Amino acid sequence: MNVDLYTNPQEVSDGSLASRTVVVIDALRASTTLVTALANGCREIVPVDTVERAMATRKRIGPQGVLLCGERGGLKIQGFDLGNSPREYLPEVVAGKTLVFTSTNGSRAMVFVRGCHLGLIGAFINAGATARRILSDSAEVAIVCSGRENLLSIEDMTCGGLIVSRLLELRPEAVLNDAARTAHILYEHYAHDLLGLLKTSDHGRHLVEIGFGDDLPFCALIDTTHVVPVIRDSKVVKE
Amino acid sequence: MNVDLYTNPQEVSDGSLASRTVVVIDALRASTTLVTALANGCREIVPVDTVERAMATRKRIGPQGVLLCGERGGLKIQGFDLGNSPREYLPEVVAGKTLVFTSTNGSRAMVFVRGCHLGLIGAFINAGATARRILSDSAEVAIVCSGRENLLSIEDMTCGGLIVSRLLELRPEAVLNDAARTAHILYEHYAHDLLGLLKTSDHGRHLVEIGFGDDLPFCALIDTTHVVPVIRDSKVVKE
Repeated sequence: MNVDLYTNPQEVSDGSLASRTVVVIDALRASTTLVTALANGCREIVPVDTVERAMATRKRIGPQGVLLCGERGGLKIQGFDLGNSPREYLPEVVAGKTLVFTSTNGSRAMVFVRGCHLGLIGAFINAGATARRILSDSAEVAIVCSGRENLLSIEDMTCGGLIVSRLLELRPEAVLNDAARTAHILYEHYAHDLLGLLKTSDHGRHLVEIGFGDDLPFCALIDTTHVVPVIRDSKVVKE
Repeated sequence: MNVDLYTNPQEVSDGSLASRTVVVIDALRASTTLVTALANGCREIVPVDTVERAMATRKRIGPQGVLLCGERGGLKIQGFDLGNSPREYLPEVVAGKTLVFTSTNGSRAMVFVRGCHLGLIGAFINAGATARRILSDSAEVAIVCSGRENLLSIEDMTCGGLIVSRLLELRPEAVLNDAARTAHILYEHYAHDLLGLLKTSDHGRHLVEIGFGDDLPFCALIDTTHVVPVIRDSKVVKE
């Protein structure tokens, strides 16, 4: 089994994901938020790339039972119901609801990987379950980090490295590309201080500055849920 | 001082290098080859991005004292004088000569960074000297890895990490971006087995397959020369 990791969606060449199981990661915070939303009973999520498309989508399918969610610059978008803090996505807020979701990097990556064999969303909180779900299928694996404005994000890479680590526990013969190897080394380096890593990452420092420091301990939890969101027909659902 | 590293030139946004000292790295093998060529007395190097441009450049400035050099797919290009093995660039071959050089990733990165404040070429063999040259100037630093067809190359990252390590010895207060931090962790991980890293990297395995395994120990040497090539007016020269 080949495990290829990409530091951001821009690295992926056209069509190369068609036959692969693809895991999208945006550890701070979109993947953690969407895993949490589905674990807390939300019905489905529609990821879109722009604020305009989010508004148009809600107009088309709502407003009944539809929440407009997401961020720009880390902050809740004006007129939206929720931002991108996983702590907002409580059962009493999201249960049974359809979420239209847009974030700067994560939702764009989710839109980008449409058309792959199987699309999953991975975070620290569901890494082990994500690895098991990958192996329940025989396809080759691509882990696509959302990155930050086309740059490498150390927390996405480290989260990818945790998933690689879980895969290697089950399939020690897996062959890693250079970026997957790099991610695995990062995870081993930071395994005992994930929160410290998040606090000092480029994106984590920004989140602390704008008042979302309390999201970091939540995003640094490992394997607290079995929920692995699946991207299917332009929606993200719990299987 | 900020030290930003980029995993490949595609990550760099337009114009963002204009005020910075930029180090281009293609550890396997272009940077090692060009450092060696200048250390062995070559007059100057003209890096170009395509084979056609290499041929046109020699026509324009040669043929007297001009060698056509480079690779595609790792192999010497038909009709060229030299390939991309540093072991070919001996004093008796290159002294006093102008080299027109094209390689799949490295020379493209060198062409890409034209217009920056100061362009340098870094490799394992000149890492310490490169760090000292960076600090002799007050500009902010960008380390641009050539990567491999727009993907992260673990050996370029590790070489970048060695340069970061040398910079931190002299300027412990330097602020690293996420990718520079990742590179530094990779270097610390592989510091005692650089040859093992090169042999098992995606690109190193390809070079071994096509018969260039003997280049790897040469490319894995650390700080064997003080020569730091400078990119100036579309040429690469020894200061």
